[in-house]
Amino acid sequence: MTNTPSIIHAKWVITDTTHILKHHALVIQSGLIEAILPSGLAKERYPTVTHTTYASHALLPGFINCHTHLTMNIFRGLADDLELMDWLNNYIWPAENKWLGEELVYDASLLAIAEAIRSGTTCMNDMYFFMNATARAVTETGIRAHIGLHLIDVPTAWAQTMDEAFEKAILFYEEYKNHERITPTMAVHSTYTVSLPQLIKAKKIADDYKLKINIHLQESPQEIAHVQALHQERPLMRLHKIGMVNPDLIAIHMTQINEDDLKILTATKPNIVHCPESNMKLASGIAPISTLMQHGLNVALGTDGAASNNDLDMITEMRSAAFLSKISTQNPQALSAETALNMATINAAKALGVDHKIGSLAIGKAADFIAIDLERIETEPLYHPISQIVYAASRDQVTDVWVAGKQLLKNRQLTTIDEKALLAKVKTWRKRIQNTV
Amino acid sequence: MTNTPSIIHAKWVITDTTHILKHHALVIQSGLIEAILPSGLAKERYPTVTHTTYASHALLPGFINCHTHLTMNIFRGLADDLELMDWLNNYIWPAENKWLGEELVYDASLLAIAEAIRSGTTCMNDMYFFMNATARAVTETGIRAHIGLHLIDVPTAWAQTMDEAFEKAILFYEEYKNHERITPTMAVHSTYTVSLPQLIKAKKIADDYKLKINIHLQESPQEIAHVQALHQERPLMRLHKIGMVNPDLIAIHMTQINEDDLKILTATKPNIVHCPESNMKLASGIAPISTLMQHGLNVALGTDGAASNNDLDMITEMRSAAFLSKISTQNPQALSAETALNMATINAAKALGVDHKIGSLAIGKAADFIAIDLERIETEPLYHPISQIVYAASRDQVTDVWVAGKQLLKNRQLTTIDEKALLAKVKTWRKRIQNTV
Repeated sequence: MTNTPSIIHAKWVITDTTHILKHHALVIQSGLIEAILPSGLAKERYPTVTHTTYASHALLPGFINCHTHLTMNIFRGLADDLELMDWLNNYIWPAENKWLGEELVYDASLLAIAEAIRSGTTCMNDMYFFMNATARAVTETGIRAHIGLHLIDVPTAWAQTMDEAFEKAILFYEEYKNHERITPTMAVHSTYTVSLPQLIKAKKIADDYKLKINIHLQESPQEIAHVQALHQERPLMRLHKIGMVNPDLIAIHMTQINEDDLKILTATKPNIVHCPESNMKLASGIAPISTLMQHGLNVALGTDGAASNNDLDMITEMRSAAFLSKISTQNPQALSAETALNMATINAAKALGVDHKIGSLAIGKAADFIAIDLERIETEPLYHPISQIVYAASRDQVTDVWVAGKQLLKNRQLTTIDEKALLAKVKTWRKRIQNTV
Repeated sequence: MTNTPSIIHAKWVITDTTHILKHHALVIQSGLIEAILPSGLAKERYPTVTHTTYASHALLPGFINCHTHLTMNIFRGLADDLELMDWLNNYIWPAENKWLGEELVYDASLLAIAEAIRSGTTCMNDMYFFMNATARAVTETGIRAHIGLHLIDVPTAWAQTMDEAFEKAILFYEEYKNHERITPTMAVHSTYTVSLPQLIKAKKIADDYKLKINIHLQESPQEIAHVQALHQERPLMRLHKIGMVNPDLIAIHMTQINEDDLKILTATKPNIVHCPESNMKLASGIAPISTLMQHGLNVALGTDGAASNNDLDMITEMRSAAFLSKISTQNPQALSAETALNMATINAAKALGVDHKIGSLAIGKAADFIAIDLERIETEPLYHPISQIVYAASRDQVTDVWVAGKQLLKNRQLTTIDEKALLAKVKTWRKRIQNTV
């Protein structure tokens, strides 16, 4: 099938952080980038098709949010500024116990996807229960997602036993293994909620199906103490012993890293997902990102769930990553704007094993890109586009978003989500949930 | 003079962080709040005047940005991710040396004020050269500002000598001492750029004219080391010896506080201005805000100049203050959303000595308030308005802004600034400055 290409011009085209092209155009054909040309040349070469110009904008690869729990958007702001166990025991778990199900997960995923698109995210790496409901929301809205086969040894409305969880995981894999925009991953909750035999079983499935494995790992000092009390070893070592720490692992959080951990990480090269805002808000700890990068590790960026952030905004997440790295290393040169943007794009694509498809703008890659209007009061004078995007822009400057060539946000309007109907549903959920906690 | 009152209704009226009123109205008369009433009652009582309703919004006191260098907006993003001295020597100072003057300060102040209004700030506490040009921008745009009599013992286009600086300071004071929206303050740059006799002279003037004294104080370990090498004492002690540390002092930054400092601060009760984003970006240090508040000190919030932030957004500043406090104290309960909002409103008003006039919504106070639209994808479900404002809202949700009852932002449009003309001027400045560094 050949369609008419669409040609999108912009003042700047940031194909990756080392290439900022001025007055260029993307030629999009069948969901892919067919060419990247100077605007003049594009107009000459495609005289008969429609050209669209973003005169004051930068086009750049869409953000890839490398750690989400989309459903948690429905609990955003339910309770803040609390001790973790108080928050979970008295707010999140009672609400989940009462309401967890297809309807909640679908509606909440839709809310999260709406927010993600409106802040320039084109792909998420999600883990939560009822992933089929999230997958439905992803399919309908046109966004891209990696969705975890969610394994946690706690009985829920999703799965009463681990056997049931494994069974549903495999069914989900079979249903979505060839989906155009959904990629199944393995998503093991943690080393304190999944036993060693179950971890080994999960690894076997991941190896057989060639899936990346996500896991919350060494998020806080409390986790380390808890796992050491349970198993007399640190979580990372526990995974290392069964061969799970390798480039197919996506280790989320990793705020607690000692010398031994660093040796294991350096030797085995798993991917790290840094979630600075969640780590700050929950007071979990500070991942030593600069050190990890200096040791050659790939570090991507994620927001975590909106209930501990409280947003899915990758622009503020990049900014927070840079700020936290600078203050914690006492070095203003640590984690530049360019590095932050890499973490939110190409590094995330590498972590997910899809950097041949997304994460930068290049010929043959998917047309997953966004337009950010930079000629605004808030981002002028414009000396350097990447500095303005990371350090000064806000999400409302993301005016347009495309995934696989399809426009999902057009001049700030969602094209695949009925915003009014969604907000009405969310209001109903608020009343239900408020009556539960 | 009695005008017709204007009546502004909203879904929520947050008069201060302990009073969130639902479906209330502000009655505004001659720039002041005349009444705060339930919407029904307001309609009964004022049947013949125009009522305006913000159906999905919260009205709250405008933010008070307690430390700015408005002019620095023109250098925003010129150079980032650098060592302080590299940044100053090779970028900021060459640009300032070449261009510092009335025209630069006026245009740059206008740019900063436009950004401030568009992010819900109704009052700033500024310090920079050519304060008469900033005052002109403040006068014309209708915003409120405290403007420092700027003293620094470095020859500039503004003042070649300290004598000249003192002379111009007093002229500025005389010109603006009775201005409706401008309040002169004393603004001494630091203990390493102003000598002891000059500090004493500045204090004398401040005492005579009843001015608050601003000073950058103990911003970084480097400052402490520098001042100790110069004067064999810490900056705070230096000021304490001359009696300058008292409730009329506004001590900006204060990231470096030892036990002796804490004793002085607790005994003398100066106001502290916390600038978390600037402190993080420049890797200056972390002010121990929770400890200071526990010791009864008043802590306000400021962005610092946009070149080290890189914005004047008080919403993200509140969020960063909360996050930084939580992570640095390892306590998720530290610095709640409510405390952050106090720091950005009433605490700032107290620091500036104007809490009888601004900083909360109360009868007889100035009608300095803002409307934030909360029924958005990004701030739903709406369990708690203050949580959503601090942790999830972004500046574009500030739809309307009033200062002294005059509307300066109307459905995101500036009413007193020609945005297009301003952006054109800023573009000219960018070219000039880029050719200088």
